[in-house]
Amino acid sequence: MDRFPNPAASTRRGFFATMNLKPVAIIGASGYSGEELVRLLLSHPRVQLTAVTSRQYAGRTLAQVLPKFAHHPRARTLRFSEPKAELVAKEAQVIFLALPHGVAAEFALPLLKLGCQVIDLSADFRLKSAAVYKDFYEREHPAPALLAQAVYGLPEVYRDQIKSASLIACPGCYPTSILLPAIPLLRAGLVRPGGIIADSLSGVSGAGRKAELDYLFVECNESLRPYGLPRHRHLSEIEQELSLAAGTQVTLQFTPHLVPVNRGILTTLYLAPNARFEQPDDLAEFGKKVAACYQAAYPDEPFVRLLEGQALPDTKNVLGTNVLELAWRLDPRTGRLIVMSAQDNLLKGASGQAVQSLNLICGFPETAGLL
Amino acid sequence: MDRFPNPAASTRRGFFATMNLKPVAIIGASGYSGEELVRLLLSHPRVQLTAVTSRQYAGRTLAQVLPKFAHHPRARTLRFSEPKAELVAKEAQVIFLALPHGVAAEFALPLLKLGCQVIDLSADFRLKSAAVYKDFYEREHPAPALLAQAVYGLPEVYRDQIKSASLIACPGCYPTSILLPAIPLLRAGLVRPGGIIADSLSGVSGAGRKAELDYLFVECNESLRPYGLPRHRHLSEIEQELSLAAGTQVTLQFTPHLVPVNRGILTTLYLAPNARFEQPDDLAEFGKKVAACYQAAYPDEPFVRLLEGQALPDTKNVLGTNVLELAWRLDPRTGRLIVMSAQDNLLKGASGQAVQSLNLICGFPETAGLL
Amino acid sequence: MDRFPNPAASTRRGFFATMNLKPVAIIGASGYSGEELVRLLLSHPRVQLTAVTSRQYAGRTLAQVLPKFAHHPRARTLRFSEPKAELVAKEAQVIFLALPHGVAAEFALPLLKLGCQVIDLSADFRLKSAAVYKDFYEREHPAPALLAQAVYGLPEVYRDQIKSASLIACPGCYPTSILLPAIPLLRAGLVRPGGIIADSLSGVSGAGRKAELDYLFVECNESLRPYGLPRHRHLSEIEQELSLAAGTQVTLQFTPHLVPVNRGILTTLYLAPNARFEQPDDLAEFGKKVAACYQAAYPDEPFVRLLEGQALPDTKNVLGTNVLELAWRLDPRTGRLIVMSAQDNLLKGASGQAVQSLNLICGFPETAGLL
Amino acid sequence: MDRFPNPAASTRRGFFATMNLKPVAIIGASGYSGEELVRLLLSHPRVQLTAVTSRQYAGRTLAQVLPKFAHHPRARTLRFSEPKAELVAKEAQVIFLALPHGVAAEFALPLLKLGCQVIDLSADFRLKSAAVYKDFYEREHPAPALLAQAVYGLPEVYRDQIKSASLIACPGCYPTSILLPAIPLLRAGLVRPGGIIADSLSGVSGAGRKAELDYLFVECNESLRPYGLPRHRHLSEIEQELSLAAGTQVTLQFTPHLVPVNRGILTTLYLAPNARFEQPDDLAEFGKKVAACYQAAYPDEPFVRLLEGQALPDTKNVLGTNVLELAWRLDPRTGRLIVMSAQDNLLKGASGQAVQSLNLICGFPETAGLL
Repeated sequence: MDRFPNPAASTRRGFFATMNLKPVAIIGASGYSGEELVRLLLSHPRVQLTAVTSRQYAGRTLAQVLPKFAHHPRARTLRFSEPKAELVAKEAQVIFLALPHGVAAEFALPLLKLGCQVIDLSADFRLKSAAVYKDFYEREHPAPALLAQAVYGLPEVYRDQIKSASLIACPGCYPTSILLPAIPLLRAGLVRPGGIIADSLSGVSGAGRKAELDYLFVECNESLRPYGLPRHRHLSEIEQELSLAAGTQVTLQFTPHLVPVNRGILTTLYLAPNARFEQPDDLAEFGKKVAACYQAAYPDEPFVRLLEGQALPDTKNVLGTNVLELAWRLDPRTGRLIVMSAQDNLLKGASGQAVQSLNLICGFPETAGLL
Repeated sequence: MDRFPNPAASTRRGFFATMNLKPVAIIGASGYSGEELVRLLLSHPRVQLTAVTSRQYAGRTLAQVLPKFAHHPRARTLRFSEPKAELVAKEAQVIFLALPHGVAAEFALPLLKLGCQVIDLSADFRLKSAAVYKDFYEREHPAPALLAQAVYGLPEVYRDQIKSASLIACPGCYPTSILLPAIPLLRAGLVRPGGIIADSLSGVSGAGRKAELDYLFVECNESLRPYGLPRHRHLSEIEQELSLAAGTQVTLQFTPHLVPVNRGILTTLYLAPNARFEQPDDLAEFGKKVAACYQAAYPDEPFVRLLEGQALPDTKNVLGTNVLELAWRLDPRTGRLIVMSAQDNLLKGASGQAVQSLNLICGFPETAGLL
Repeated sequence: MDRFPNPAASTRRGFFATMNLKPVAIIGASGYSGEELVRLLLSHPRVQLTAVTSRQYAGRTLAQVLPKFAHHPRARTLRFSEPKAELVAKEAQVIFLALPHGVAAEFALPLLKLGCQVIDLSADFRLKSAAVYKDFYEREHPAPALLAQAVYGLPEVYRDQIKSASLIACPGCYPTSILLPAIPLLRAGLVRPGGIIADSLSGVSGAGRKAELDYLFVECNESLRPYGLPRHRHLSEIEQELSLAAGTQVTLQFTPHLVPVNRGILTTLYLAPNARFEQPDDLAEFGKKVAACYQAAYPDEPFVRLLEGQALPDTKNVLGTNVLELAWRLDPRTGRLIVMSAQDNLLKGASGQAVQSLNLICGFPETAGLL
Repeated sequence: MDRFPNPAASTRRGFFATMNLKPVAIIGASGYSGEELVRLLLSHPRVQLTAVTSRQYAGRTLAQVLPKFAHHPRARTLRFSEPKAELVAKEAQVIFLALPHGVAAEFALPLLKLGCQVIDLSADFRLKSAAVYKDFYEREHPAPALLAQAVYGLPEVYRDQIKSASLIACPGCYPTSILLPAIPLLRAGLVRPGGIIADSLSGVSGAGRKAELDYLFVECNESLRPYGLPRHRHLSEIEQELSLAAGTQVTLQFTPHLVPVNRGILTTLYLAPNARFEQPDDLAEFGKKVAACYQAAYPDEPFVRLLEGQALPDTKNVLGTNVLELAWRLDPRTGRLIVMSAQDNLLKGASGQAVQSLNLICGFPETAGLL
């Protein structure tokens, strides 16, 4: 496939391509996910960050706006530019959108027309149905024609589709922490699609960099609180993907909690085995099936860690990495299956997974820049 | 100076009684619960703390061992003594046991024989059955004869029994956070006794003051982790009390998590309404029943706060208080009832509740020293 | 002195006075200091909180606005009113002002005219000189005529003046942590007035409840940073009081740091002994003088804790109390005296100290409501 | 599978060398610094980690002991071995010692004899004088003959010596945060060698992974405390290096504080300018000299960031990086120079700086594996 069909797009974009570095850009780099994306792309061995945009910071260097990256030589020369699709498309082949929901879609259409590949971190292209989008996001979808084209950017589930996609919708942080543990079990028919409960804890960076009283240090430190129940927006994409895996409509019970860590999501899933435990060995038999199911689903996945023995997930063990940790327990007293996962919400739950998709569409090793 | 001029009041116990201050003692005051008990009793307007014991600190003043209390005049004169029942019984009428499980029972028997009232913060007398104790605590019960005599110290449920009790078994921290929300619903038959799930988050003080790697600052900060599932010891007392409320055996799914706060427990309960939602108004009707049930169960409870409107529990709102906050939501999509509670694990979950019981057995206002 | 000279002021204010409860009010109760003041006054045994004001919350109860106090019966009935001096003066004898700098002064004048006693937590009346105020706060002083009348509310230093004051200017949080350790040494001539350095760490509540990015959880957690140097506003009142103690102009080096705790200030002072260490025993001799100086200055102070032996100040030991902890070390290698203090910035550094002044002007025991 | 098919490359050490990957080992990899070293070396593009040792974990894989690294393929195959110098020397050319003080020296001698290069993270080889070592570490130096051979591993100061060293003594965390700001000023004679004060804040990982009550989460969270003054062990190496820079004996005032972050050191230095400020412009002139001095000292240093404008150091901006941030202010009121630095104590303060030295002795780009 000719990645540079437009002969007019000749400058930086072409230049870095010849150096065997893929030119990439970020539109909206001042939030927590955008910042993490900057960090990953500055260190990525196969990529050159050629543009970052921000209306607020246009003209200033990356190092000036995000001093934490000032030791990267690139951060001292790269300047924020105005977020204009035409300009960015001249600079880069692959464009990351780290923008609020609704805004991202406005950029995707022109960028795709200009031959770019778009990796969107917002919720705009995660849903197949514009009606469900309207129901959960309370606005008309801004670009419904693109929904069919978008691929849900969960590499462990949609690896092949991602490789050839031009528009990738990166999953939300909570969805990733629920889907990777649940999908293999539903696909295998090991658990019932009804009555699933997901109880999640999230660090405060999940709320974004917003100057609101609720997210002040003093309001969050020494605070534990549920929020947004019983109908969090992320339910829409989680239920879409669980339903596809189960082959039937799944309705999920989902309770997010805000807890005082910067990063990390810990999810505890309550599932009903699709089995009857009547004989003494039935439980152990079912346990073997669960173990085999996960082994088959994630045999060599670089970023899914199946814990063994007594180990249970702990967000501190995945902090700063693109890994999702997973463990499960069968409770002989209740007959229920409990599956737990831990991830860094800004990495496997956002920017790390986005780079994983970048690696796939560019034909790089999937772990490039992520180990 | 002769502290005991009245020869009739030959013990400190008698002396303070004549001053209209109840003489109380704490056996084992160096852990987090014991320390919190010291704080409460030093400020309690109806009580004189006449003895604290500790093998390790015997001979030193409270102020020397716990400098944070040194501004209380009493802390500068009261010295730790050896933990001997006979000696303590001479000093105090009501004795708090803040000791490890198994050790507490050894003190309860002699103290009761000496005419003291005992308020035990350990798990030793919470269970009706010595067999269940052995099953969960993996040792023979050290004083099974006392089990029938003990009253479970949950004032909102057993107020009358506590008033006349001589041995009070204070509930554990997790149990309190689960029982207060669940018992009224089970008693009223509003939810099904089967399939209940309790997902809890606890601050690190719940683990006690133990020099173990798992509880180091660096291991807990920026860490979210489940532990002790699927069969935490507290299940035994929770299921006992839920079963009594339901009139049938209840088996609970319970998942505790360790999160980086000093104090606080946040519990999310998943319950199945004992109702069918077939007509459009059925859900709202059931909601009214839930609201009425809680209003009837906790009409003027000083330490149960039923939240209204959009408010959800937040541990920071109960920190340093004896209050349990409670809110619920009916999910129209799943038909499930979600009840959430927040408490300070060292107060309503331990020492505050113990003082609430003290107030009851002494005939003080139930809120004395707790507002 | 007739505390109620105005016969028109007859209602609630007079009513509670006859109950032997002093009627008090808070103007501006929605910030962190105001909130802490609410907590203290609700539990104070000699006081009735008769009014709280807030433009934003007028008409709502304390319990609705600050649910954490909802278990206090008073919080369920007391409603926020509009902040109008005339109305508040009818309700209360002593009025606390927990308002921003500049705004407080506007309320003080009419309240004093109406015969109230005013305890101001802002910086408006801390300085003797309107010119210094203008220099540091960059505005004209709003009520310079009142400056001479105001008493600096540091009870350990100005106890007698406070007892008969009608306008009390409560010290800032940093100033308290510096003045209590330094004043006795300067008064006794033990240290030189020149070259003093104060290096302070403050919890985030010191910045107030402001929706600014700098104080978000994610920006403060895992962050250590100096700020506001070399000329923090608090320098003006600190230097005023140090100069009075030294009898000569003192210029201070002061570096505040923001650290991730909710509450607490830890100050480290570097002082030059006014002595020559030439003989082997000189250092020990000087140390005895320092010890004697502090013992003489704070012989029975309920809220200054002179640490002994190896103990060093720790903010966690004063959290939730009105105590300032103090320790010192003489360094034989440098000949310097290091003094360290720890306090709760919202209590001894603000609202606790304000209540200490309340107790003094009302003739209550100085520790009433503070133990 | 035969991993070493080439009989000429008879050791792993030789084998990897032929692959153009430098074989390196870590002795003592289970503490926080060791763990961070593992993380850096697993991702280092020019290095193969061929051995890690631990008596406790011998036989287990890196992934089993440190599950957070399990997504690195190398961590799943590399097993901990017994800490024996002969065995390790067969596996690696460069050996990192991440061992307690005193223990490290026992390994250095045999490793050097076997032709290895040794990078020691302990304090054993930082001092030139065995007498000073004994004075501060209260034991005889275990290998005084090696002291003359060791190079102090501060690349910005001793780059050339490091390049040809066989034994590198990596600076302590506090020393790095003090020396990089202070040495250029002392060398240039801009500040006086007398009366320097360093006030430092450190995260809890600086205390190591030790199961002690002082470092429990509940004891550190919401706690600010000085410790170890006035004579912390690190003074010995700091004063040695400051004295070398000043050309005269320097005695330092140093106060470390423990604050509740996992990582980070923030140091505030108080310095007396070697100048008189008599004319209006003198201060500004001196400021220009300070700026020029730092520019000359650190013109293109990849890991020293001289902040400009209003920016002040913040540990969160250097977290996870090998960068030290530095800013200074001249106080016109006191005439003092304040210099502040921020670093990650486990990286620039320990393992990152150690890898920087590795890069120098191996001839790699100095930033390899550190950006």
